[in-house]
Amino acid sequence: MCATEYHRLLGIGESAFDGLEDHLESRTYEGREYRHVPDYRRGVERGTVLLEGTVVRGFPKVPRTLVLSAGIPTAFGDGEKIVVEEKLNGYNVRVACIDGEILAFSRSGRICPFTTRMLERLIDLADLEALFATHPGAMICGEIIGPENPYTACDYPGVDSLAFRAFDWRDRETGAPLPVGERRERYERFDVPQVRSFGTYEVDETAEIRRIIDRLDREGREGIVMKSLSGTRQLKYTTSAANRGDLAYAFSLPFDYGQPFMFRRLLREAFQSVEWDESDEVARERAHDLGEAIVLSMREAIQCVDDGGTVGEGHTVRACDDAIDALFEHLRADGLQLEIESDRHENGDRIVEFRKRTPSSNDKIRNYLEGHVVEE
Amino acid sequence: MCATEYHRLLGIGESAFDGLEDHLESRTYEGREYRHVPDYRRGVERGTVLLEGTVVRGFPKVPRTLVLSAGIPTAFGDGEKIVVEEKLNGYNVRVACIDGEILAFSRSGRICPFTTRMLERLIDLADLEALFATHPGAMICGEIIGPENPYTACDYPGVDSLAFRAFDWRDRETGAPLPVGERRERYERFDVPQVRSFGTYEVDETAEIRRIIDRLDREGREGIVMKSLSGTRQLKYTTSAANRGDLAYAFSLPFDYGQPFMFRRLLREAFQSVEWDESDEVARERAHDLGEAIVLSMREAIQCVDDGGTVGEGHTVRACDDAIDALFEHLRADGLQLEIESDRHENGDRIVEFRKRTPSSNDKIRNYLEGHVVEE
Repeated sequence: MCATEYHRLLGIGESAFDGLEDHLESRTYEGREYRHVPDYRRGVERGTVLLEGTVVRGFPKVPRTLVLSAGIPTAFGDGEKIVVEEKLNGYNVRVACIDGEILAFSRSGRICPFTTRMLERLIDLADLEALFATHPGAMICGEIIGPENPYTACDYPGVDSLAFRAFDWRDRETGAPLPVGERRERYERFDVPQVRSFGTYEVDETAEIRRIIDRLDREGREGIVMKSLSGTRQLKYTTSAANRGDLAYAFSLPFDYGQPFMFRRLLREAFQSVEWDESDEVARERAHDLGEAIVLSMREAIQCVDDGGTVGEGHTVRACDDAIDALFEHLRADGLQLEIESDRHENGDRIVEFRKRTPSSNDKIRNYLEGHVVEE
Repeated sequence: MCATEYHRLLGIGESAFDGLEDHLESRTYEGREYRHVPDYRRGVERGTVLLEGTVVRGFPKVPRTLVLSAGIPTAFGDGEKIVVEEKLNGYNVRVACIDGEILAFSRSGRICPFTTRMLERLIDLADLEALFATHPGAMICGEIIGPENPYTACDYPGVDSLAFRAFDWRDRETGAPLPVGERRERYERFDVPQVRSFGTYEVDETAEIRRIIDRLDREGREGIVMKSLSGTRQLKYTTSAANRGDLAYAFSLPFDYGQPFMFRRLLREAFQSVEWDESDEVARERAHDLGEAIVLSMREAIQCVDDGGTVGEGHTVRACDDAIDALFEHLRADGLQLEIESDRHENGDRIVEFRKRTPSSNDKIRNYLEGHVVEE
């Protein structure tokens, strides 16, 4: 397909498309060539894919507020109703049917060979095919969650290995979302598992929304996404448990996570403490938990390296041989160094525990332990 | 003076000097023009000053170790002896005599009109004049400490307002230091107050040095600088109290301090916890204290802005009218916005409480409180 047609599909001018083309990343998936927008740019969503003459639109960034009571009225219209749905901690995928083939795309627009192969375990294939037969232009947007996951592992009760939860339904080419009610109904009809909905609220019902957050926080869950009924406006907010969990993880690999990642989460905690109007005692408890997330995980990482070990991102995956081979090929092609820690078969599945190496944290921690001096 | 002579004084080639010249900052102090090196560059120390045909060499960066037992043998020679002196928390000045005038230079090479005027209160003028009469090429290097201080205020027992403590004596032009023993003796002879010395140690006496750190930590003091007897090699290490104090201060103005500033201090805490071989319980206490330094100070800043107040760097200065006028002129010329909170006279001195505005923290905190959403 020539550039002219792609620019039309993307809804941008020809010269804007010419400018975009330099930033497109070219990839191959099983002999199929495609291009994608790997990072944030003006005009076209990150993760947008161009392939086979069609477009798979990137999933938009969901804005976040640090203060619920002020952010909700800012993000949504006066008197507008909002649906509150659960935000899950896993990895974002979009599923689309291209030339009769059902493919799973990562947030940045890569075709993920592992997720693509696992789809039929996560959603009944007949349902999926029926969905795309009825709605060929659909883009199923959702989160892959669970502990046996090569990207973002997180435990959820009732999810032993891996699960899919849809949170949006968009037009594959334009990215336009379905209204929330219609979306939930359609997913129910096609038996596609969805994120929980906590119901519909007025924009000034902050106290009710706060209670949802409190409950999720006690359960150690991530947070919520609020949506206008039309599905077009979104706003997210996360629990203290999620902030702490992220901090503990980031500080366990302190030189492989960006400092802005850490700083943003510290900020969220302080704003939440003020908005919750915490007593000094409660704020102090929050501070202690946060301090532990930082210091104890960093200490453990340093101790591990000091004892001659290596730190890294540990993952477990359980799948058929083919999916695992495809996953490792995909990760290695990305330049990741993998250490396989165990590799066995169980009930016809292959279960691999592996570790993505994080060279920066290992090298820098070792350097400092060896007395490397810092000029600062 | 022509460039050729400056390059000779600096000990660099002509072409290197040509390259440096573009980075020199030109300033005026009471009709006297001078240039200085405001930031770190290869070859010439930050803070180096060119004036009246002579050079005032910048004070070198003092390297830091995160792990005492490994860093000391790395920084110093095998079997070398090191002197341990106290590192004080104030601001670094260099004092030199140029054309018969005694001037105080900031770390970055500015002539500080306030410090220059305060010198005679901090060191007996007759002693100072005698020192420069005997050693015209001397550069007195030290810290200005105390609570009544326009830059870095910190309480020290026995220092009601402001005090000077010498920690180095260098050749003004070459930057070469005196050996530690000779330096301490000379300052004693000229009655110039000095930083405390904790004595001389072998490089493997980490346990003894650790005890000094423990004591300083209990007293809430900053840390130590270790020096080779020749004065040429230096290494610093700070207490947990200092790390926490810095963190509390930085997070009380969270958008005006760099994230690397914060991150480095978190890192130091974790390495110290590992090197001190802390039990889980002790490490947890350290984590709690650190969490409080972060969360409680940020919370207080947000609450202050939420209550309609402004956050900023509060300072108190006590000096003669002329020194205070010169200070405020100097700070305002630098673009700082000052809020005068009180201004009174007492025993012939003028005492001013003022606040340096920190627009970033005020504006960003207010934005978030007003529901500004974050695209992240």
